[in-house]
Amino acid sequence: MNQADSSTIVVKRTIAATVDELFDAWLDPDSLAQWMHPGTTALSTASVDARVGGAFEVLMHYPDKPLRHHGVYRQIERNRKLSFTWISDATQHSETLVTVEFNVASAGTEIVLTHERLPGQVACAEHTQGWTLAFELLADLAAKPLVLVTFDWVPEMPRGFVRDIRVRWALEEAGLPYRVQSVPFSDRNADHFSHQPFGQVPWLTDGDLSIFETGAILLHLGERSEALLPAGPRGRAETLEWLFAALNSVEMASLPWSLLQFSGNNDGTPGWNMMDSFLKKSRLAHLEPLLAKREWLAGPFSIADIVMADVLRLVDRFDGLADYPACRAYVARATARPAFLKAHADQMAHFAAAD
Amino acid sequence: MNQADSSTIVVKRTIAATVDELFDAWLDPDSLAQWMHPGTTALSTASVDARVGGAFEVLMHYPDKPLRHHGVYRQIERNRKLSFTWISDATQHSETLVTVEFNVASAGTEIVLTHERLPGQVACAEHTQGWTLAFELLADLAAKPLVLVTFDWVPEMPRGFVRDIRVRWALEEAGLPYRVQSVPFSDRNADHFSHQPFGQVPWLTDGDLSIFETGAILLHLGERSEALLPAGPRGRAETLEWLFAALNSVEMASLPWSLLQFSGNNDGTPGWNMMDSFLKKSRLAHLEPLLAKREWLAGPFSIADIVMADVLRLVDRFDGLADYPACRAYVARATARPAFLKAHADQMAHFAAAD
Repeated sequence: MNQADSSTIVVKRTIAATVDELFDAWLDPDSLAQWMHPGTTALSTASVDARVGGAFEVLMHYPDKPLRHHGVYRQIERNRKLSFTWISDATQHSETLVTVEFNVASAGTEIVLTHERLPGQVACAEHTQGWTLAFELLADLAAKPLVLVTFDWVPEMPRGFVRDIRVRWALEEAGLPYRVQSVPFSDRNADHFSHQPFGQVPWLTDGDLSIFETGAILLHLGERSEALLPAGPRGRAETLEWLFAALNSVEMASLPWSLLQFSGNNDGTPGWNMMDSFLKKSRLAHLEPLLAKREWLAGPFSIADIVMADVLRLVDRFDGLADYPACRAYVARATARPAFLKAHADQMAHFAAAD
Repeated sequence: MNQADSSTIVVKRTIAATVDELFDAWLDPDSLAQWMHPGTTALSTASVDARVGGAFEVLMHYPDKPLRHHGVYRQIERNRKLSFTWISDATQHSETLVTVEFNVASAGTEIVLTHERLPGQVACAEHTQGWTLAFELLADLAAKPLVLVTFDWVPEMPRGFVRDIRVRWALEEAGLPYRVQSVPFSDRNADHFSHQPFGQVPWLTDGDLSIFETGAILLHLGERSEALLPAGPRGRAETLEWLFAALNSVEMASLPWSLLQFSGNNDGTPGWNMMDSFLKKSRLAHLEPLLAKREWLAGPFSIADIVMADVLRLVDRFDGLADYPACRAYVARATARPAFLKAHADQMAHFAAAD
């Protein structure tokens, strides 16, 4: 390795995090997508097959077109060393080699990245800049106290509707930095139940607080951002009553209805008819005239809208809003928000990465 | 009127409230029961037929036996004058006459009460003391900013389970003063829907704030009392996650289940079986081991327990806790609390008074 060599660069950075955390940040696709991108606006999606010989891909979503980076893992020595090939437009599609070493340091962990076989000095300069920026983002990510925990994978059907989307959406609306961590879908252990007593997801950790129930998480985030929950007593009260209304009046009717729909038990029995009427006559019929007259439930867009729109879009999925055009239009305008689109794309990519 | 007369007394009191509010406090049976009683422990129940010639009854519940006061309205001039006959043990069952005049005063409203035809000086002294104390309670009541609004009447079946009980319970636990106001069960008008968009009860007014959804009301009250919601960040987070869990994880399963039970649609159809399993396998089975190990959900008793216990006792009513003894024991210890017993008795008395 010779830094004067016109085909090799070395980039070093010490980050205040454990070796464990930083090593995972390279191999967990969610983490990788969150720091390996070219800036704060363009985002990445990533897939990882974390074994020697396994492939990875990072798509950096530039405004004009995505830039594809891909390669194959050559060495994986947990918490010590990682090496992989690296091919992109910027390498002129030639195969280059990246080696990352992790050294325990007094201020955390030193990362030493060596990028070899780059095609010339311009490529060397570009990649030095690129890795330096990426490490800046990785350091930011490691400093983030908010961690959203969700399943590593779910079947096709619930994708896009797993409840972590409500938390992702709120975090994106508020611009709060966060990381995503996975727990196994198919093997929920005691640690999982200690965070979420019903074995569900998501939960959120904020420093040493661990909070389950999306309603409680959104309220917690709301206390941190006026983009989610107004600070004045009237705005706060109105937002909270609608948050509870979405969860305990509307979803209490819509979720059983959706379960019966999903399982094919929407069968004209008296029980089904009762649940159908509970949702439509007792809930949507009252919501419809309100949503025809207001853009959002409680003045400005808030956590109440995140929950209500997410509740209603599941009803819409089973065509339950056909007779409620104002409810449907409300769902459309809520889900057109950039924060929702980002949250939705992230959830889809997260589960797809584990297929 | 002659104060020296041995059969007539006059009691005056100026109270910081509008004439409107104070006039209503005499003719609304809920209000009447809350101030026309002999002290802070013994309570009253009241019925009122608020028209000239209509009868009223106030039962003051002394520890040994209720004391009955009754009479008939002779004059009702709204916001000016009220007169009625008054018969009780203390009048030696002879018919006496009470006239109440309402005068606008700079500090609120002056009430001038004249009680005629009392049987002698002892009765005069007793009634002077009685009315003076009652006016003290009326002044307290008028100063209370918290008003719980519920139905004037409901059918037999839901009594004891109407959701205002959660709010009554919280108010009693916290010792917060409040009044109860009624809205018609059978004729829900636009004003009702402006406070509660689904036409349900309860709602709470706190000064000029009006809040619906029991979850939002309990959270609002929790901010006022550590007996309901711990102030520290960890205690607060744990209480709130369990509040939402009770409303959005457990009740979302239990309420549809109860509706199907109540309507006789617990019929072994696949739809019923799914909802039964949703409640028992996905919820109660996870709650059972937790409640076997802890007295309350989140450390000290809190609003989370008020909701969870109320949710579970409806399941218990349909014998759904038979296989979950820890859940059942939890309901038993929560509903043995004096604040629950008071809230429950008040709700039963409130609806019974309108039969």
